[in-house]
Amino acid sequence: RMHHPDAVHQVFQCVILAVLGYACTVKLIPAVKELTLKAGLKGRDINKKGTKAGEKDVPESLGIVSGSVYLICLILFQLFRSFDQFETVILYNAALSSICFMIFLGFADDVLNLRWRYKMICPTVATLPLLVAYTGSTTVLVPKFLATWLGHALDLGILYQLYMSLLAVFCTNSINIFAGINGLEAGQSLVIACFVLVHNLLQFDEDEVTRNAHLFSTFLVVPFIAVTLGLLKYNWYPSEVFVGDTYCYFAGMTFAVAGILGHFSEMLLLFFIPQLINFVYSIPQLLWLPCPRHRLPKYNQKTGKLEGVPSHLNLVNLTLLVMGPMTEKDLCTTLLLFQSLCCVAGLLGRETLIAYFYDAEP
Amino acid sequence: RMHHPDAVHQVFQCVILAVLGYACTVKLIPAVKELTLKAGLKGRDINKKGTKAGEKDVPESLGIVSGSVYLICLILFQLFRSFDQFETVILYNAALSSICFMIFLGFADDVLNLRWRYKMICPTVATLPLLVAYTGSTTVLVPKFLATWLGHALDLGILYQLYMSLLAVFCTNSINIFAGINGLEAGQSLVIACFVLVHNLLQFDEDEVTRNAHLFSTFLVVPFIAVTLGLLKYNWYPSEVFVGDTYCYFAGMTFAVAGILGHFSEMLLLFFIPQLINFVYSIPQLLWLPCPRHRLPKYNQKTGKLEGVPSHLNLVNLTLLVMGPMTEKDLCTTLLLFQSLCCVAGLLGRETLIAYFYDAEP
Ligand SMILES: [Mg+2]
Ligand SMILES: [Mg+2]
Repeated sequence: RMHHPDAVHQVFQCVILAVLGYACTVKLIPAVKELTLKAGLKGRDINKKGTKAGEKDVPESLGIVSGSVYLICLILFQLFRSFDQFETVILYNAALSSICFMIFLGFADDVLNLRWRYKMICPTVATLPLLVAYTGSTTVLVPKFLATWLGHALDLGILYQLYMSLLAVFCTNSINIFAGINGLEAGQSLVIACFVLVHNLLQFDEDEVTRNAHLFSTFLVVPFIAVTLGLLKYNWYPSEVFVGDTYCYFAGMTFAVAGILGHFSEMLLLFFIPQLINFVYSIPQLLWLPCPRHRLPKYNQKTGKLEGVPSHLNLVNLTLLVMGPMTEKDLCTTLLLFQSLCCVAGLLGRETLIAYFYDAEP
Repeated sequence: RMHHPDAVHQVFQCVILAVLGYACTVKLIPAVKELTLKAGLKGRDINKKGTKAGEKDVPESLGIVSGSVYLICLILFQLFRSFDQFETVILYNAALSSICFMIFLGFADDVLNLRWRYKMICPTVATLPLLVAYTGSTTVLVPKFLATWLGHALDLGILYQLYMSLLAVFCTNSINIFAGINGLEAGQSLVIACFVLVHNLLQFDEDEVTRNAHLFSTFLVVPFIAVTLGLLKYNWYPSEVFVGDTYCYFAGMTFAVAGILGHFSEMLLLFFIPQLINFVYSIPQLLWLPCPRHRLPKYNQKTGKLEGVPSHLNLVNLTLLVMGPMTEKDLCTTLLLFQSLCCVAGLLGRETLIAYFYDAEP
């Protein structure tokens, strides 16, 4: 069905580069984890407290390897690409700057343990290159039951830039707080990235403008999948390394950028439903209830299973309370299955939602 | 003499932004230095060993503040600028990516203490965005006594990109090894930056292409001067904070980028004469002689002065051996005076060198 040999060719080059990126990540992590250990970037695996694995120092912030390899992939990819439009090159470079800045700030957060308000400020600052470079449309279509008051299309102007910032803040932090068990941060990001890729490829036969936007976001997301797989090899249960805020920030920013420049940020939010649930459910503890540093489940040494803690208001504990105690690996798999189900629902529900909110497809 | 109101206007906007950048740097360093201390990024001031000041932990890597503020200045400056050419926007963004990547890798180096070979690889990797985006001329003029064999102009092609990488490796590492006393890294960078600025402003009345190139590098160097001044306020003798590899990498990369995109990289090397001398004089110790981690002078508690160590082959010790023991502050001032003299000589010698090597001005 694909009649776009040039686009297919470029996706193919992107995949080859991504495979190399996977190989580099897998090769570099064992070397870099020794360095992060020595630098004191390490943590204890609290969910294994009392067992031998819980006594070991686990190197932290290995997202720095994925992030660096990803940046190199993005840079090198430009060599193979003959961009037809200057605007595209500029946006591509702005995306690169934003993601690079975010990885840097994420690593700074890991090392310096920034306070909460900086976790809001950092993604805002890191989106700046993109906001400044963004010259595309700032018009959004208005749902039909609001059209009477607002008209069919609304030019948000500078508010659109604000929306972009908020999206970046949401994506980065919502991944960062949906965490706490082995493999969950990288796992959820992998699932989201795969669905973003599928969504992009499904739009491949649309008109040229739409196709180019989705092609652009494909180029961002394919190497991301590769470096995440490389990281998961070591981060999957039982974790040999932790990913750090570096990775969560990097992942969130990549999604935000891909969504904005691929013009499917509303679709992106449908892929973030578990994160959205986790965020909303966490709000009381984030804002007024006492909030311990790690809101982890309780490890039962006898059964070897994790048990939900009712006072820790997050999706991880909620799942355990609803479904009963589980091993850490099963819990992660369950949560990733839920993530996948939400993404499938989002993908299928898109057409329905569009028909409901708008008369025609936007 | 300046007939370019638009250019003057832009330089003015750049200066205002830089002043804000200075204020931010000065305000942020006291807060961030507590965080770097807590994170274990700290060092002892070995040149004050035995005194009370030598017992105190000095926070390291405060270059991270200068670097971050600098990036924000560079990003925000785009808001005020109506770039007339797409090529300029692309190069500006590529410069931003390269410097951002370098600051990130520099900070990673500070935290993880990368091995020597990575100190070569990091700047090479960080120049990649620039190399990929660079579509300018790769032709160099040939000095006249070589012109018989090579012709008057030689297209270096891909070798030009190699030259750009090597320049970045040299600039970053040569500043990093010309160090060891309070204020020297930031001081030398400040002097070089001021002379780069003077050189740029002197070319302001040339033809438009030349002017635009120098304007471009002016925009890079003015905020750099501001954030360096902010850092020096705390790093000058007696140092309250150290700058870290982060700063040296950031400074070196900024110079390399400004030199390449301003088309005066040969001039830049004339401003780097002290670093060049220090590098050449250090070669034996870098390559085959035993090399202690810090090749510092010896602090004499009785006199309160620093004394040269003959086995430590660098310019700091050579100066002390030639001129006799000095206090740390005097030594730094002497070295910065030498840096200034070399830069003045470079600036004045330029015309002579051009006349000697070429028939006409290139
Ligand atoms: Mg985290
Ligand atoms: Mg250093």
